[in-house]
Amino acid sequence: MWLPAPRSNFEVNTKPMPADKLKEQREGGALYALCSRLYPVCRSITGDGVRATLKELQQIVPLCLHEVRSGRQVFDWKVPLEWNLREAFIEDARGKRIVDTANHNLHVVSYSVPMDLVCSRAELDKHLHSLPEHPTWIPYRTTYYSPDWGFCLAHEQRVSLPDESYRVVVDATLQEGALTYGELHLPGSSGRDILISTHICHPSLANDNLSGIAVATYLAKHFMNQRLRLGLRFVFVPGTIGAITWLAENERDVSQIRDALVVSGVGDKGRFTYKKSRRGNGLLDRIFARRFATTDNSVRLFSPYGYDERQYCSPGFDIAAGCLMRTPYGEYDEYHTSADNLDFIDAGALQQSLELCIEAIEEAQHEIRYVNTNPKCEPQLGRRGLYEPIGDEPMSCVQLAQLWILCYSDGEHSLADIRDLSGLDSTTLARAAERLEAAGLLKAEYG
Amino acid sequence: MWLPAPRSNFEVNTKPMPADKLKEQREGGALYALCSRLYPVCRSITGDGVRATLKELQQIVPLCLHEVRSGRQVFDWKVPLEWNLREAFIEDARGKRIVDTANHNLHVVSYSVPMDLVCSRAELDKHLHSLPEHPTWIPYRTTYYSPDWGFCLAHEQRVSLPDESYRVVVDATLQEGALTYGELHLPGSSGRDILISTHICHPSLANDNLSGIAVATYLAKHFMNQRLRLGLRFVFVPGTIGAITWLAENERDVSQIRDALVVSGVGDKGRFTYKKSRRGNGLLDRIFARRFATTDNSVRLFSPYGYDERQYCSPGFDIAAGCLMRTPYGEYDEYHTSADNLDFIDAGALQQSLELCIEAIEEAQHEIRYVNTNPKCEPQLGRRGLYEPIGDEPMSCVQLAQLWILCYSDGEHSLADIRDLSGLDSTTLARAAERLEAAGLLKAEYG
Amino acid sequence: MWLPAPRSNFEVNTKPMPADKLKEQREGGALYALCSRLYPVCRSITGDGVRATLKELQQIVPLCLHEVRSGRQVFDWKVPLEWNLREAFIEDARGKRIVDTANHNLHVVSYSVPMDLVCSRAELDKHLHSLPEHPTWIPYRTTYYSPDWGFCLAHEQRVSLPDESYRVVVDATLQEGALTYGELHLPGSSGRDILISTHICHPSLANDNLSGIAVATYLAKHFMNQRLRLGLRFVFVPGTIGAITWLAENERDVSQIRDALVVSGVGDKGRFTYKKSRRGNGLLDRIFARRFATTDNSVRLFSPYGYDERQYCSPGFDIAAGCLMRTPYGEYDEYHTSADNLDFIDAGALQQSLELCIEAIEEAQHEIRYVNTNPKCEPQLGRRGLYEPIGDEPMSCVQLAQLWILCYSDGEHSLADIRDLSGLDSTTLARAAERLEAAGLLKAEYG
Repeated sequence: MWLPAPRSNFEVNTKPMPADKLKEQREGGALYALCSRLYPVCRSITGDGVRATLKELQQIVPLCLHEVRSGRQVFDWKVPLEWNLREAFIEDARGKRIVDTANHNLHVVSYSVPMDLVCSRAELDKHLHSLPEHPTWIPYRTTYYSPDWGFCLAHEQRVSLPDESYRVVVDATLQEGALTYGELHLPGSSGRDILISTHICHPSLANDNLSGIAVATYLAKHFMNQRLRLGLRFVFVPGTIGAITWLAENERDVSQIRDALVVSGVGDKGRFTYKKSRRGNGLLDRIFARRFATTDNSVRLFSPYGYDERQYCSPGFDIAAGCLMRTPYGEYDEYHTSADNLDFIDAGALQQSLELCIEAIEEAQHEIRYVNTNPKCEPQLGRRGLYEPIGDEPMSCVQLAQLWILCYSDGEHSLADIRDLSGLDSTTLARAAERLEAAGLLKAEYG
Repeated sequence: MWLPAPRSNFEVNTKPMPADKLKEQREGGALYALCSRLYPVCRSITGDGVRATLKELQQIVPLCLHEVRSGRQVFDWKVPLEWNLREAFIEDARGKRIVDTANHNLHVVSYSVPMDLVCSRAELDKHLHSLPEHPTWIPYRTTYYSPDWGFCLAHEQRVSLPDESYRVVVDATLQEGALTYGELHLPGSSGRDILISTHICHPSLANDNLSGIAVATYLAKHFMNQRLRLGLRFVFVPGTIGAITWLAENERDVSQIRDALVVSGVGDKGRFTYKKSRRGNGLLDRIFARRFATTDNSVRLFSPYGYDERQYCSPGFDIAAGCLMRTPYGEYDEYHTSADNLDFIDAGALQQSLELCIEAIEEAQHEIRYVNTNPKCEPQLGRRGLYEPIGDEPMSCVQLAQLWILCYSDGEHSLADIRDLSGLDSTTLARAAERLEAAGLLKAEYG
Repeated sequence: MWLPAPRSNFEVNTKPMPADKLKEQREGGALYALCSRLYPVCRSITGDGVRATLKELQQIVPLCLHEVRSGRQVFDWKVPLEWNLREAFIEDARGKRIVDTANHNLHVVSYSVPMDLVCSRAELDKHLHSLPEHPTWIPYRTTYYSPDWGFCLAHEQRVSLPDESYRVVVDATLQEGALTYGELHLPGSSGRDILISTHICHPSLANDNLSGIAVATYLAKHFMNQRLRLGLRFVFVPGTIGAITWLAENERDVSQIRDALVVSGVGDKGRFTYKKSRRGNGLLDRIFARRFATTDNSVRLFSPYGYDERQYCSPGFDIAAGCLMRTPYGEYDEYHTSADNLDFIDAGALQQSLELCIEAIEEAQHEIRYVNTNPKCEPQLGRRGLYEPIGDEPMSCVQLAQLWILCYSDGEHSLADIRDLSGLDSTTLARAAERLEAAGLLKAEYG
């Protein structure tokens, strides 16, 4: 098993950053560097690889780590046994290791049961996975919930294996332990949160999903000391079972969450794709649809396969969880193969993904539904200094905006709706809303 | 009065059918034969003609006959006195019967009061009905709720009647009795029913409405021994008052019925027309709209005249009752005249109508709204054998379909909705739904 | 201050009208004459000018006058002190009155505080208002809620004032008193009312708003002795604070009011503009949208500035209050200047505005939502004489209309909806509805 490489030069710290570092950071170098450090770690849905990954992230943001015991019932599922790999290899008849996880984490089917056996070429082949159409790439395979074992290798190597006996070793433990996930909650004044989720279970795959981990981490870092209306709840979870476990462990808090963003596959150089939530009209659905309407980026409808939006959107929760990607999962050849490596992702692309997420979350902060606290007739703005005293001068834009906001803040219309109704710009409306809120004439609602 | 002709060769029985019979049946011969047997019967909204008709149908399907006493209040109406005709005729001055129900049931206005009088040509003419534009046809007229009498005859005969005295005889009884209707309930597993209704009150008119009676009867026969999700409730009722009586007598059961199909005028060679229910978006409305969208057949909006859909759709019940016809009522010259006879209907057309009804009802059986019994996160399909264990092979269609169904079975979406959302075909979805239902992960709902 | 001119020849009385008077009335002479009589009165949001105006209207319709004491809390506002002007003027250094409300009511900023001071040209100028783009017109300015003072004058006079000292006098009282409004309620059989509102606070401005006062007054006169389904509630209120006061004083009655029409600026020769209510789909919204669809007149969406529709539409009340104007406020140069005088308005335009209002209100009277009192099946029309006895003649239009109305009078559809569904004309439908209502088969609902 690969161990994490020693800390790279790109390590982030709290001391003033030299100019070239700053430039790097601006250009996505820090995100790329984080991917580089995480790339060698042998992750799975449980185990020390996940812990090492989360600890690396704790160097950047103060994640809380949670451990949920094996066997715990989480809705229809049980938290599985913990799997930790020391090494796995295939030896040929001469004792030469021809396939070895020391060379690539992907060589072993994840969650392969511990074993040490000698078998024929034919028997071995039943447990081999390769990609004839990409003969030099190693595919990524798992067998989490079915006790089995297997090896992944380049197809050209597989076909060249002579018909002799092989020793197959999976030196791993599969036993009572825990599932680990990381969480960071940045509370907002509204009591309502947006969930940002990324999976952390893929070993040595760069775009899917180190890119998502890096963007989510730096997104959390960006918003850490900011005042927020909508809180942000970052979760770094093993795919599927991790999201399910998180939902089960945090079911009481889910009512605070109406919107979620799953971030994954955001490091390649393709255009963006936003996959809408099942509901299709959530806060982030609307924001990304608006942003992408006039660009080459695309928005697609929900489908119930993909990443953890599947769990968040399930009808029992019905969170409006969308998914931000660049080239969508499964639509690039490198997907789930050894070719999804550090060459496949790009610092600039990572940085652009981060910036897009920052902008969308900031926009969401302003997507407020105010409620007029004084809904019967217009309130007297003049005595609050919110209205020019001598009538009939052309009304200022802010004054107009105040009237629009008071008039439509009936609990049905958000500030964005009022922008569309009035034709006034967001900035003027936000300024007017702040004045009215400060005067006690509006109350922000998110429920 | 005509009596039913002796049983024809086409009689259906339970013994194995010879090959030529089978072909006949395939080609609508059995439907046509039933029409032929029923054609001579003198039906009205009450009386022995209705009973004879229903008894003929009992040879094919085990209808229950219900008798509701004259005078019984049924909503705003009262069940009328029962009318039975022995004969009705007009004699000329020489004692020659020039108009006689022995020649055609349509000669007498239905529900004419019993009488025997001599009157002048002029007096007689006030009670005559004919069609100047079709001088050889006899029109169909009724006077159910207004005590009156009259005769219908060819216009060319009417204008040739000399100015002499005439004896007019209606040898009928109009007295306390009952209204008769037939019913067959094929229950479904869902507890919800589709109502299939046809009127049975027209004497010696083939398309309107023997064609409807024949198709409804063989439709019932087709579904008799099948397992159904949506039950089928067949009612054979006199028009208007019969449907009202049935609704009054079965008001408690109406809540089980959300959709209905009135079948009438389905024996001519015209294209199909489906008239939507008042609600316009019922189960059958959607099915026929979909089926006819890409054909020459047409769908039209509801209007509150026509057949018994008027009663079923009335706002107090609001059943989504549509009406399947070929050429719509009133839009062919032969409508409600002696020209709507056995030559006007066609065995092949009857058979095609029956097949369309069968297909629509079968489609309705699959228009199920499932509810995910495990709505929080995806259930673990793998341990139920519903998912391939080693991940990342391209997912099979049935597996995809399972995810779509679980995700959208939130009580809002039917299987047809999910077909439209997913683009998957109905068969795959139905197969996936069956697997999930068998695993206890879905519950079918119809409410 | 100008006093009302002596009664003009156009005075309306109850004696038979000579032919030339009648013609005048037909052509809007009476409306124009009322404007002429009201033009000289010095109105503001409180005071004797408002009282004199309402008393003038009482010559035509029996308005109730209401006085609400200064200081009374009305929602977020307080009824202000009462302001009454004797005179206000500017004297030059030689004691010559160069600006004087004896010449035009607009010369003083309404609600200027009482004062008598001598000041420099420069000091004076801070309190002057003029219109450089229209150098001969006097603008209209107010300072109701901010204790201040000011004078309005022609810009050419302002720039010609020499640099000397000036005596400025506002001989007015600003003290405890009342706000006055007028009201006339013409109840309807349904218990539901339409509110007709016009503001009465503008001094010596003809189109805004004497035209509205005149049209509303004669509209009330027109409907005074008519039987109404929807009652009419006419209010003549000072702008903003008057509407707010009326809503506060009549809050209990507001639930009876779902629709309102604010009438203002209906005397100029421009095309009509109907500004929709905030809800946008009220009774009058629909009627004016329909009426204007095929004309040069226009309909525009709601905006929260304008007249008292702002208060009526506020989310706490949400009355569907639209506003009928000709050229909209602020879109003609003369708006809120001395050029909005008796020459700017036109008798014919006033009369046309009145007629449009009458037609719209009459149409509203027929925009009835009936409820079928016998919703289960069709009622038996024949025994009520509402149906031709011997069937199968082509159905009359009124009979068809009866079926459509019974079928769709489910509490969801108005007679206008049924017109659109059926394609039948309004007159036939109205006739059919009257027959059914007389037979007890329909009940009109407005709730």
